[in-house]
Amino acid sequence: MTRAPAILIMQPHLAPLTTLLEGSFTVHRFWEGPPVEAATEIGALVVAGEYPLDKALIDRLPNLKLIACFTSGYDGIDVGWCRARGLAVTHAPGVNHEDVADHALGLILASRRMIVSGDAQVRSGAWTAETRTITPSLKDQRLGIIGLGAIGEAVARRAETFRMSVAWWGPREKPAAWPRAESLIALARDSDILVLACKADESNRGLVSAEVMDALGPQGLLVNVARGQLVDEDALIAALKSGRLGHAALDVFEVEPTPAARWSGVPNLILTPHTGGATTAGVQGMLMLLFQNLEAAFADQPLVTPVAD
Amino acid sequence: MTRAPAILIMQPHLAPLTTLLEGSFTVHRFWEGPPVEAATEIGALVVAGEYPLDKALIDRLPNLKLIACFTSGYDGIDVGWCRARGLAVTHAPGVNHEDVADHALGLILASRRMIVSGDAQVRSGAWTAETRTITPSLKDQRLGIIGLGAIGEAVARRAETFRMSVAWWGPREKPAAWPRAESLIALARDSDILVLACKADESNRGLVSAEVMDALGPQGLLVNVARGQLVDEDALIAALKSGRLGHAALDVFEVEPTPAARWSGVPNLILTPHTGGATTAGVQGMLMLLFQNLEAAFADQPLVTPVAD
Repeated sequence: MTRAPAILIMQPHLAPLTTLLEGSFTVHRFWEGPPVEAATEIGALVVAGEYPLDKALIDRLPNLKLIACFTSGYDGIDVGWCRARGLAVTHAPGVNHEDVADHALGLILASRRMIVSGDAQVRSGAWTAETRTITPSLKDQRLGIIGLGAIGEAVARRAETFRMSVAWWGPREKPAAWPRAESLIALARDSDILVLACKADESNRGLVSAEVMDALGPQGLLVNVARGQLVDEDALIAALKSGRLGHAALDVFEVEPTPAARWSGVPNLILTPHTGGATTAGVQGMLMLLFQNLEAAFADQPLVTPVAD
Repeated sequence: MTRAPAILIMQPHLAPLTTLLEGSFTVHRFWEGPPVEAATEIGALVVAGEYPLDKALIDRLPNLKLIACFTSGYDGIDVGWCRARGLAVTHAPGVNHEDVADHALGLILASRRMIVSGDAQVRSGAWTAETRTITPSLKDQRLGIIGLGAIGEAVARRAETFRMSVAWWGPREKPAAWPRAESLIALARDSDILVLACKADESNRGLVSAEVMDALGPQGLLVNVARGQLVDEDALIAALKSGRLGHAALDVFEVEPTPAARWSGVPNLILTPHTGGATTAGVQGMLMLLFQNLEAAFADQPLVTPVAD
């Protein structure tokens, strides 16, 4: 009997994939120790695309042919470096962008309509006969979307249902149902709510700078469902503390998991643990593509969803 | 100079109306003491419609002509009793139903996508490299709406944008874009999420009973943005504690403000302090109608938004 093709799962939070994959593959798990004995067998790495690739490890895997991102994003992957070594890279596009957009709207509603703070208010007994909390209506709020890809368009469609107006900015003009701002600063200045929905790479690290936060302003809300590195996190903390930026709601962070202490005492802030695209339906779709790409790679068939040039 | 017509504001959380109304009216405030000396002057009561009317007080105001609800709801008002005394009743319909629907979606997203609990998870340091929270996608969730009025329809339109399927139930058949369930129990049984969006009166007190909660079940989510009395709150607490009902998100309560201690130790629950319709835009619209109805009543002109028969 032929031994099943060997794969190596890199990040411990992907451990639940093990039972689903070991029916078809010999599964190694990096955090249980370097796969020294299996080094010549491993044909594919299974990774979360936001984590930097361990290039030193890859150089010790002579028969590796595929870097399979479980995720849609692959910002941790040096694709050019992989190509130069003959390594294919796959990912899981188009399966969870609607769920990410749902989460963005959830964060907007939770912040603007004070759902997280309202829950704390009721539980602490601070709701009294004399208090009545008035929250801002979403009606006519101006939503600015950074990056009008699949997620950005899904956010825009939802925002219209909530009676918000929509504009966007991205580095490249494209046909769209909503107007493109002339610059990111202009978009921030003319928005009440700014949502990050773009891809991240080295070219746009820290895209949302202190200057962008100042343009969004003391009533503004910054929502990030894209990647933590797109926001200058130190500047964000300072802007929220000083009140120069009104509110923020973050699903992604410069370092994940983000240390709890980093956010202690930072006001007007909602934090979620990178759950935007990690839904039951999203994970099923991602798993299906992962499986198909692994099968194709080991059968020397065309990959289903290779990373585009 | 003629003295401005006198009005009496009943509930302390309506106190902020004072400064807006005293340009045109002599404003008395009930919680500062019974208006004994002004009893013959007061021509209108300004009330929040969810609070029971103080009938004994009204019998001591001989020149009262109007009960002006600041709110859309008037479930605390015995309209028949008022009519029998020649008292008109007005309210503020059609100004905040979209905001209430927004809040309902905010509660659905906050519960299903674990935004309140996710915030607590990050802040407590419980997000670690080994944990990855998977939340349910809203896609294909079956939303049941109790009461397809203005709020219910607005919830339905939003739910479709989030890829949910919609059904509804109400005591009366009506033309609608979504199917009506044969009964409330049938709606609960065939729904993943049940949203209360109907009017409350004595005929439907405790409408969402233990039986309805059991039909919704251990994965189900109950959302109430209508009135607290529509839900058997003791049964709800028992159902959540036993797990017979999965989740609840409540903006309204049997008694408001609801005592914090009542909800201590009740799992899978989000609470907001009746903020569904209390938005900046909603309050502006309500204030406009209140003002117009008061002016009309004192000028013996037709009322703008009398309570319908």
